[in-house]
Amino acid sequence: MGRPVITLTTDFGLEDHFVGVMKGVILRVAPEAEIVDITHAVTAFDIMDGALTLAAAYRYFPAHAIHVVVVDPGVGSVRRPILVRAGGYRFVAPDNGVLSAVYAREKDLRAWHVTSKQYFLQPVSNTFHGRDVFAPVAAYVAAGVAPEAFGPEIKDCVRLPLPKPALEGTNTIRGAVLMIDRFGNLMTNIRPEDAPQVFEGRKVRICIGAREITSIRSSYAESESGELFGILGSSGVLEIAANRASAEQITVASAGDEVTVTWE
Amino acid sequence: MGRPVITLTTDFGLEDHFVGVMKGVILRVAPEAEIVDITHAVTAFDIMDGALTLAAAYRYFPAHAIHVVVVDPGVGSVRRPILVRAGGYRFVAPDNGVLSAVYAREKDLRAWHVTSKQYFLQPVSNTFHGRDVFAPVAAYVAAGVAPEAFGPEIKDCVRLPLPKPALEGTNTIRGAVLMIDRFGNLMTNIRPEDAPQVFEGRKVRICIGAREITSIRSSYAESESGELFGILGSSGVLEIAANRASAEQITVASAGDEVTVTWE
Amino acid sequence: MGRPVITLTTDFGLEDHFVGVMKGVILRVAPEAEIVDITHAVTAFDIMDGALTLAAAYRYFPAHAIHVVVVDPGVGSVRRPILVRAGGYRFVAPDNGVLSAVYAREKDLRAWHVTSKQYFLQPVSNTFHGRDVFAPVAAYVAAGVAPEAFGPEIKDCVRLPLPKPALEGTNTIRGAVLMIDRFGNLMTNIRPEDAPQVFEGRKVRICIGAREITSIRSSYAESESGELFGILGSSGVLEIAANRASAEQITVASAGDEVTVTWE
Repeated sequence: MGRPVITLTTDFGLEDHFVGVMKGVILRVAPEAEIVDITHAVTAFDIMDGALTLAAAYRYFPAHAIHVVVVDPGVGSVRRPILVRAGGYRFVAPDNGVLSAVYAREKDLRAWHVTSKQYFLQPVSNTFHGRDVFAPVAAYVAAGVAPEAFGPEIKDCVRLPLPKPALEGTNTIRGAVLMIDRFGNLMTNIRPEDAPQVFEGRKVRICIGAREITSIRSSYAESESGELFGILGSSGVLEIAANRASAEQITVASAGDEVTVTWE
Repeated sequence: MGRPVITLTTDFGLEDHFVGVMKGVILRVAPEAEIVDITHAVTAFDIMDGALTLAAAYRYFPAHAIHVVVVDPGVGSVRRPILVRAGGYRFVAPDNGVLSAVYAREKDLRAWHVTSKQYFLQPVSNTFHGRDVFAPVAAYVAAGVAPEAFGPEIKDCVRLPLPKPALEGTNTIRGAVLMIDRFGNLMTNIRPEDAPQVFEGRKVRICIGAREITSIRSSYAESESGELFGILGSSGVLEIAANRASAEQITVASAGDEVTVTWE
Repeated sequence: MGRPVITLTTDFGLEDHFVGVMKGVILRVAPEAEIVDITHAVTAFDIMDGALTLAAAYRYFPAHAIHVVVVDPGVGSVRRPILVRAGGYRFVAPDNGVLSAVYAREKDLRAWHVTSKQYFLQPVSNTFHGRDVFAPVAAYVAAGVAPEAFGPEIKDCVRLPLPKPALEGTNTIRGAVLMIDRFGNLMTNIRPEDAPQVFEGRKVRICIGAREITSIRSSYAESESGELFGILGSSGVLEIAANRASAEQITVASAGDEVTVTWE
């Protein structure tokens, strides 16, 4: 299987020593691990943002990769650390719903409550389980320790409801902005499977805030510079974008804002 | 040749999952690859900024490194993905001029239009060729696929004119600020080979905006704190700098601003 | 000993090519090195911030790791490049005090003035010793070159005084905010060994600016959202924090601000 791959998705930022320290702890246990950052810019304390970020990324990694996700406002409290096996991957995270998108998508799910303290970095702090719990547990998984060794299997992982769009009548879908990328593209929760009509070349009207958008493009470069349009983005959802400009700035939209699409 | 080295230079930022996903895709094809970030903070959509960033970095990597450069406002349009071999390195990028500094510097240039879809991640999106085209192609190059396998050789790569300084009379050179680093140092396009007199210890006068600078230093620490001076920087160009202070803030300069140097 | 681990701690930021170039230089000399970023967001020119960041991180890495620290306002001046062996690790840095926390903590200290130019990248610039001196020296250390080969042993490394708290009477300690993390938690210089009474469950009063804090918590999640409290943080010091909120914003505190704690 070659070098084990461990990915990190956190809200720790890159300004402090936190991420570097997690990598040091991993390399002490699993020196052959290849550690890859997905991102450390998850909105602080925002479990859903972490869940959606992971969802956009985890399937692009090699089989058997170990995904560590630390968005953990409950660190040091009773929430459980868990190890999950699903879709050919392993996940190490707090049991606060940050893996909800994985649960929604993968069928072959198994989960363990991580209780075996011999896999923790001692002494375990109450404030940095990324370092003391999640990093070393991921490293021991990479080193070949079997899931059962970490603790009892569980069936009651915390699942958060993923924001789903709603059909209204026969020609409207009401969704929301889930995330905004660094280019200012607005990623919604509206997928072709929710409303195929949006992506079939019909006349559509997309409403977000006070703006009305009437074109669906197939690439960013296809439109006039600065023009707003809808597009089926690389994550498989409707995006609202602008060519070489920020749809976020033009629409003044935020994550969570409502988006409705009507078709002919 | 040991582990293949793949570098990444993009305008994707580190806030989203984009860069992590590119690394996942690479590791699926080339698990032994060593992936190094040059930077992901190229100014969004700014092809010249990408070209200059790459120029400052690529020669410091091991021979045979594969440099992936994704600054790609035309993603999904007709611009070609290309593979270039030059100076002992390989480059994978959109054919929009982002490799212009490489073309200007290296003599042994060969280029291929990447058309062989079997090296792409399917289905290919119209908005994220970093993931679907450039990352997997670089990984197949790392895995040993020959350049010819990716598509036909081409001779007409897009070349952007690099901003060159102009001599005026016998004692003046007129250049520009190319880039500003995180310390606020202003990197110009004036090199010793353009005007050796600037760097020979003569009296000089550097004009930028309303500021006049009359000293050339040989290290940052040599001057008074906050004093502006010229210096031959680590990229081999005239920099305008200030000791423990930001020349950018003091001069209120931006990339593109004119810089003239007069010597005695 | 497996792959040599080299860590990087600098004030270079991630916006420019600097960090990528250092990694390229390392990989040319030591292709098997595993390079880990601790952080590149040390406050520009702030030697003490670099020293404290390194102190919080270096012991979490595998034995024999090589820690490169480049916070170097004196680059190109007379300050010495040094190689230090301490605590089972190696350190490569400018001799400006940035290793002071290592000197304070480790007993088995040896240091060498790095003078052997054959280990530098030629020509050595006066402005980027991260690339030309520290990266290649670290790589040669990783490749097995003995410390003595780099230059003469020295005993007079520059030591900066680490900010220490002061006891006042029998029930007060006066310290300071050392660093502020991305969550806005204020890390002080007050440790349990300085004033165990603070952490023993007694009634305490923490004063910072105009704010008075009267609770010590054992985890972030234990308190009301937005409430300020003291906590023994993961670096082993008193932190001032707020649950899911920024203590920095609530207190309007900065690094260096005074913190006093009084106990019953």
